[in-house]
Amino acid sequence: MDFISKLQKKWTENKFVCIGLDPVSEKLPRGVNNFFEFNKEIVDATGDLVAAYKPNSAFYEALGVKGIEQLQKTTEYIKSKYPEIVVILDAKRADIGNTNEGYVKFAFDYLYSDAITVHPYLGREALEPFLQKKDKGVFVLCRTSNPGAGEFQDILSNDIPLYQAVAQKVSVNWNQNGNVGLVVGATYPEELLKVRNIDGSIPILIPGVGAQGGDVEETVKAVQKNFLISSSRGIIFASNGEDFAAAAKAEAEKLHNQIGQSLATL
Amino acid sequence: MDFISKLQKKWTENKFVCIGLDPVSEKLPRGVNNFFEFNKEIVDATGDLVAAYKPNSAFYEALGVKGIEQLQKTTEYIKSKYPEIVVILDAKRADIGNTNEGYVKFAFDYLYSDAITVHPYLGREALEPFLQKKDKGVFVLCRTSNPGAGEFQDILSNDIPLYQAVAQKVSVNWNQNGNVGLVVGATYPEELLKVRNIDGSIPILIPGVGAQGGDVEETVKAVQKNFLISSSRGIIFASNGEDFAAAAKAEAEKLHNQIGQSLATL
Repeated sequence: MDFISKLQKKWTENKFVCIGLDPVSEKLPRGVNNFFEFNKEIVDATGDLVAAYKPNSAFYEALGVKGIEQLQKTTEYIKSKYPEIVVILDAKRADIGNTNEGYVKFAFDYLYSDAITVHPYLGREALEPFLQKKDKGVFVLCRTSNPGAGEFQDILSNDIPLYQAVAQKVSVNWNQNGNVGLVVGATYPEELLKVRNIDGSIPILIPGVGAQGGDVEETVKAVQKNFLISSSRGIIFASNGEDFAAAAKAEAEKLHNQIGQSLATL
Repeated sequence: MDFISKLQKKWTENKFVCIGLDPVSEKLPRGVNNFFEFNKEIVDATGDLVAAYKPNSAFYEALGVKGIEQLQKTTEYIKSKYPEIVVILDAKRADIGNTNEGYVKFAFDYLYSDAITVHPYLGREALEPFLQKKDKGVFVLCRTSNPGAGEFQDILSNDIPLYQAVAQKVSVNWNQNGNVGLVVGATYPEELLKVRNIDGSIPILIPGVGAQGGDVEETVKAVQKNFLISSSRGIIFASNGEDFAAAAKAEAEKLHNQIGQSLATL
């Protein structure tokens, strides 16, 4: 099934939670030997609740080849056990055109991902190798969740901040194949509302709830529909004891329910 | 030796060539079994001529774990044989702060690189894990070499295009440790001149000569000093026969001499 069909099916099932699979060696619970074992337990405990998993490449690259092996085993496992769940490789890549072919192979052929996150700075022309993969999703960074996001993203051109110019370009020019989404942090609900007003239906991937402080109700109120709310540390490190998978499930369920309640009050 | 000392030493020796180590399986000469073997031959043939090597991560990630192994062997080999040559991991990374720690480990601890290329879109605050590594270099994408670079990079704010705003911010605010450089494509000599006028001494990494069409003399005239001119395909794939390393050396020498002549006429 292609990326957008998977996503829409999950939304039909009222599933909007995305879990960031971002393991850190020092935080692995006792008895868990590696990132794959950890991720497998989390996936087994939460697969029925979520729309997407989002491993961030940086946490695996930190371990070099061993980390990439764990990442590959993780995405392979999700694909075989839950083929209908969207796997987003949070890699924040973007190079010139022919070079991006390498990242396309890494994300989609080697890691079986359904989607990838990318930087907008090089423009659409450079990103064509991603955009042309009609069955795959491309989430373009628009308004990032970090405190200093505004340094360039808020630069005004014709009274429009850069992040809105990105949203406009992506909405009007980049999404010919209906496979493009935007990334907007939950830590910026006003900016999220502006982006949703620019494109009423484009998928929006929203990190920044939980550890980073974004509010779920405010987020849902701004984005309204066609979204994924992603939490990483708040879910996967909910407990560092033997009950870590059950604790992750409880946190994922809590987020799922908060989203459901917020949607009900729209 | 730290990044900037290595670079300055090479400049004192009148070395400005950077070779992009971007191997592709289908282009390996007959008898060459893997990326490391290929790179090793290129490095052995050109080490006396160059200031830097710049492997682009995408070409290795295309092969998954096997590619990363070849990358690690390559950077390890350069470090042991030519410890005074700068190794730039062309990875074009950038995530939120704590996530970048993973990329720092990958680039500097695992791959022994001296520098990394990064996207500016998330702002300085996010990039602190890179910027705080005082002994390592951070090349920030400013004006990229691709044809569609202007889509966002030319957006005007207070009559200044975004790429110049990036150059200004990096020059004034990001470079407290003297370890930051900019990336400007040789395909945009006018923009290169503007960037050099914004910061007269910041190191500028210049891809885009050779296969992409940038002119060496025009480039040197614009940048004047403190630069690396990077060529990948034009050097490493100069021949696909048994003489590929000698052909690469000849092309590297040609570029080295062109730069020397251009500097002499300034």
